[in-house]
Amino acid sequence: MDLLQRIELALSAALSTTEVASGPPRLAAAVRHAVFPGGARVRPRLCVAVALACGDDDPVLTDAAAVALELLHCASLVHDDLPCFDDSPLRRGVPSVHSAFGERLAVLAGDALIVLAFQAMAAAPARHPQRLASLIGLVARGVGQPHGIVAGQAWECEPQVSLREYQRAKTGALFAAATMAGAEAAGGAPAPWRALGEWLGEAYQVADDIRDVLADSATLGKPTGRDLTLGRPSAVASRGLRGAVDHFHDVVQHAVQAVPECKGAPRLRALVRAESERLVPTAWCDQLVRATA
Amino acid sequence: MDLLQRIELALSAALSTTEVASGPPRLAAAVRHAVFPGGARVRPRLCVAVALACGDDDPVLTDAAAVALELLHCASLVHDDLPCFDDSPLRRGVPSVHSAFGERLAVLAGDALIVLAFQAMAAAPARHPQRLASLIGLVARGVGQPHGIVAGQAWECEPQVSLREYQRAKTGALFAAATMAGAEAAGGAPAPWRALGEWLGEAYQVADDIRDVLADSATLGKPTGRDLTLGRPSAVASRGLRGAVDHFHDVVQHAVQAVPECKGAPRLRALVRAESERLVPTAWCDQLVRATA
Repeated sequence: MDLLQRIELALSAALSTTEVASGPPRLAAAVRHAVFPGGARVRPRLCVAVALACGDDDPVLTDAAAVALELLHCASLVHDDLPCFDDSPLRRGVPSVHSAFGERLAVLAGDALIVLAFQAMAAAPARHPQRLASLIGLVARGVGQPHGIVAGQAWECEPQVSLREYQRAKTGALFAAATMAGAEAAGGAPAPWRALGEWLGEAYQVADDIRDVLADSATLGKPTGRDLTLGRPSAVASRGLRGAVDHFHDVVQHAVQAVPECKGAPRLRALVRAESERLVPTAWCDQLVRATA
Repeated sequence: MDLLQRIELALSAALSTTEVASGPPRLAAAVRHAVFPGGARVRPRLCVAVALACGDDDPVLTDAAAVALELLHCASLVHDDLPCFDDSPLRRGVPSVHSAFGERLAVLAGDALIVLAFQAMAAAPARHPQRLASLIGLVARGVGQPHGIVAGQAWECEPQVSLREYQRAKTGALFAAATMAGAEAAGGAPAPWRALGEWLGEAYQVADDIRDVLADSATLGKPTGRDLTLGRPSAVASRGLRGAVDHFHDVVQHAVQAVPECKGAPRLRALVRAESERLVPTAWCDQLVRATA
């Protein structure tokens, strides 16, 4: 079973625990719509990849951590798409949750996803109960105040924005949570895995800024050019397109070097390089070099 | 130290862990605004009262459960007050979070409160790590899909509403979580405490419906008569005012009888009776009897 299949199965199992006849059916449908069909499942794949590199001695706990990370990511997308934020009609090529189910169910679906994330971790059969508190703490720090994705989104509401804090919180924090939670779920020390997560978070943030300009709407599944239109902080706005692409490759190199030495290190480094190519294809870069030569 | 003082201190300590200079300051202010000054802190008081009745052998864990319940309750109020739901300008006599900080920070403050609730439980020093998973599961069930407060709110978005499921989810579930979490935090069996929570949840729901009509806006700290105006399911709408008051007293009697036999039972029963008087004062009932005689 490959990583993606393992994650889809675990997500589906977590959602079905909440889909009972006595619950409100439209909320259940909105939650499912937020999670399936998914994107690249980057954060849970990263979590499981790190757990495997650390021995993955409690796969049920690893899966629960991976599920929690993806549900929290989905919750943030649902709330980010709301009319009061990005007012985005599309997500992953289909109507966003508030477009399909209305604003009220979008607020509630996000809330339900956050709760389910923590519930999923608590429900993992307790082969290693002493790991649970640390795991929940790591994941919560990646999402909440003062440095998680909720805080990242809140920087958009401040008159003075620290670009560094904004980007670290908006993207880096959940990536760092993913690598550290993967290690913790497998009984490894989480701290050495933080840097990998932070570099990867920065790489995805920069790639997102580049793709917002370079990818077409059909590839991305959402409208392009929105960051610049909305005047949001962006690597392309601050460095120019060519500068942003160069910066992306620097950051990926740092991520590759940040993989701690372990049995699974070569496989992880290869995964990082493959993701880099998926996010910002070499063909785009060649085209850009020709265009600006 | 009385119950309320103990809870205020624990809430304040939980919030201050997130209030650091490097976080977004307006989000921190919005979260604090959502929690202080508080209401009657009914759910955490109930949780601590049950824990005390069960011996309260791990007060740090009890406090963490009580804090989690109140933060989750506050989160639900912040999101319920949003323009897409009740569009309520006031809460507890002061501007609601979205009135004071805008809609975007209200969405994010609610999200941050949900995350902090679970983080607070995970951060309780692990004197009894084996209790944590069950505690988080109990609290999450009171909030999430399919039967928690998020589901209760979602019933308002369904074309067909099961009044019983709606009320149990909207209010009863978090009360049942409060009594069961109190028992679990103190190492007691949670199941025998469920009925007390459910009856009290129903009592508060009915009292809320009655107070929405009978209390004046200044006493309640929010506009009155909104349930009937908004056409929401209400005990007053279905039973009439006199019928709702009689039903309230029946339900309180069931709650008193549902207190499991234990050393702290007499004190708990007295607490239930005192709350009943606070919620629907005998003076109101006497007035109502005279008016309809």
